[in-house]
Amino acid sequence: MTTADPRLDALQTPALILDEYRMTRNIRRLASHIASKGSSLRPHLKTVKSTDIARRLLTDGTGPATVSTLTEAEVFAEMGVKDIIYAVGITPQKLERVAAIRAKGCDLTVLLDSAEQAQAVAGFSQRSGQAIPALIELDCDGHRSGVAPGDPVLIGIGRILHEGAAELRGVLTHAGESYEVAGEDAHAWLAELERQAAVGSANMLRDAGLPCPVVSIGSTPTAHAVEDLDGVTEVRAGVYAFFDLVQAGIGVCGIDDIALSVLTTVIGHQRDKGWVITDAGWMAMSRDRGTAGQAVDQGYGAVCDEVGQPIEDLIVIKTNQEHGIIARRPGNDAPLPDLPVGSRLRILPNHACAPAAQFQAYNVLPPVPGAPLRTWPRFGGW
Amino acid sequence: MTTADPRLDALQTPALILDEYRMTRNIRRLASHIASKGSSLRPHLKTVKSTDIARRLLTDGTGPATVSTLTEAEVFAEMGVKDIIYAVGITPQKLERVAAIRAKGCDLTVLLDSAEQAQAVAGFSQRSGQAIPALIELDCDGHRSGVAPGDPVLIGIGRILHEGAAELRGVLTHAGESYEVAGEDAHAWLAELERQAAVGSANMLRDAGLPCPVVSIGSTPTAHAVEDLDGVTEVRAGVYAFFDLVQAGIGVCGIDDIALSVLTTVIGHQRDKGWVITDAGWMAMSRDRGTAGQAVDQGYGAVCDEVGQPIEDLIVIKTNQEHGIIARRPGNDAPLPDLPVGSRLRILPNHACAPAAQFQAYNVLPPVPGAPLRTWPRFGGW
Repeated sequence: MTTADPRLDALQTPALILDEYRMTRNIRRLASHIASKGSSLRPHLKTVKSTDIARRLLTDGTGPATVSTLTEAEVFAEMGVKDIIYAVGITPQKLERVAAIRAKGCDLTVLLDSAEQAQAVAGFSQRSGQAIPALIELDCDGHRSGVAPGDPVLIGIGRILHEGAAELRGVLTHAGESYEVAGEDAHAWLAELERQAAVGSANMLRDAGLPCPVVSIGSTPTAHAVEDLDGVTEVRAGVYAFFDLVQAGIGVCGIDDIALSVLTTVIGHQRDKGWVITDAGWMAMSRDRGTAGQAVDQGYGAVCDEVGQPIEDLIVIKTNQEHGIIARRPGNDAPLPDLPVGSRLRILPNHACAPAAQFQAYNVLPPVPGAPLRTWPRFGGW
Repeated sequence: MTTADPRLDALQTPALILDEYRMTRNIRRLASHIASKGSSLRPHLKTVKSTDIARRLLTDGTGPATVSTLTEAEVFAEMGVKDIIYAVGITPQKLERVAAIRAKGCDLTVLLDSAEQAQAVAGFSQRSGQAIPALIELDCDGHRSGVAPGDPVLIGIGRILHEGAAELRGVLTHAGESYEVAGEDAHAWLAELERQAAVGSANMLRDAGLPCPVVSIGSTPTAHAVEDLDGVTEVRAGVYAFFDLVQAGIGVCGIDDIALSVLTTVIGHQRDKGWVITDAGWMAMSRDRGTAGQAVDQGYGAVCDEVGQPIEDLIVIKTNQEHGIIARRPGNDAPLPDLPVGSRLRILPNHACAPAAQFQAYNVLPPVPGAPLRTWPRFGGW
């Protein structure tokens, strides 16, 4: 039988649980690290998708912020955030919504990495009579989108924006590959790659007579490890508010920093197989297998008792839509703990963004022991 | 440049597209197959989570039906469905909600596979003064939950229900392993295993003097392949209304039967790598990799043009939260088609249930050519 938390009794499972104490500690840790480097933090709100949490994440509760969808930009602009970067490559069809958000007083900046996008933004700026600000995305590590550092196409894109009716706001890069390597040294090295790519490109633009006020870098691993921010104007990170098993696996946090979990109930057993079956399947946990390639494969999540204490070597080995199958990690033949039908467990996720997106609200355990559970809504969609 | 569908022009991407003509054809195909066998179909509504589609799936628009969450049971009972099986193992804490749904006139049946659950249901039935009907789950193929066929524990569970205040409604099994094997012969064989497990167990109960009016089997592959339904009272299936790449990969449908896709927009390129980058990442497509172990690995989805015509060997090879990376399938070195920023594509999913759950509405292409797009809301949660 596991330890129980009576504050969770009224919840139907599966349910999303947020430990506010851990979240606050995570938020303060990065804010203080970036402040100590004399730079500015621009949290990414794609993980939390909650105004309650955004108010706790953002400087003065209002910004600056990063988003991954225009729905996020709309919700957070409505909440009062005045400075937002939409950090996914812009398409012409989305510019009307961008302009509508800007018209409400939010300085929304778009991202692009091609001459065709720059022409679309410049053309729209001219037709609409308002200069849309744009950052040029750089590909510092071959991860995804962006202009390769040093590629002269950068100047061409910059000129289209600056000499057209748009506004060249600066450069942005994201070391997505930092999720794939472990250890502070590796992350610090990737942070320096981010910095060099961004500062070098900013200088290329300036040498060509173009403005580059913003030099933006960041990912959760590099933001925590970065040592030198010379020439960088801001750092972005997102999942650090919650952390997760992927971040623990690469050494950015400990298991006991993970603030997000899924509360589930035992619905059955296959004792011959050493299985405990729960009501948290992939609809709750997501299909994310982000720890599959790490030193410790956590399956679809690490199993804790109801108060959040990990149970040794117990992981979710398989998920169906509304069933999770829990077993000992391969190699551990210890008998299963006694978990009768109706027992409550909490599952730590591989990637916090993914299970969070499956729920419509956070059930928040307040930092004050014994204080009642609170409910913070979250939103989705595009 | 791909072929365009002007009916989709007003949609912001990513967006969920449902081809109603294909869906209707899929629905009719299985309904007619099961009717030809003289049995009854009980569609699983966990895939669609939409009253608009449920009305088209269910016999007379009202039932019988299967669900995977109590929220589904609540929504569909409210819509007028009078006969629902909640096909995930019941826990004591959920019985109050079950009773509330039954009190509104819906004959909701629960599922269980242990004496402890049977005692909980019988105890609740006694305390609440109403007999909750329960099916005993059988594990016909070692896939997940259920009593092993022939295990005498079946009789014990049956007695607890029947001799207590609950109602023993019958037996249910699901050949979940049918998703893992290809070909109609294999599916027909698994359907026969389902039938034997269910009919044999029903006879065990009856031989022990217990009632067993319901003998329920089914999965999408076995429902389509089943030949003999002797002794079976009903067949369940869910994903067949939409179908998907997993079902196509095991031969249950063709690619051109897949009714569900995700509309996406090209947001950039990495031409050196042969990548096209879109705005449909895992938040839209899900992380499901159900075709990874199949003969043809479809990555995170197969790429079609905007009218739904597959583009040869183009798949989503990688997903980040809001980015999809499209490339040729390994081994095909043909140049990429011309897909400038702003081009629209449609992605067929591995497992229809998973991307569908990421959206709040279906954008429905009506069967009448040129008729305007319709919007059918869908719901989530537990």
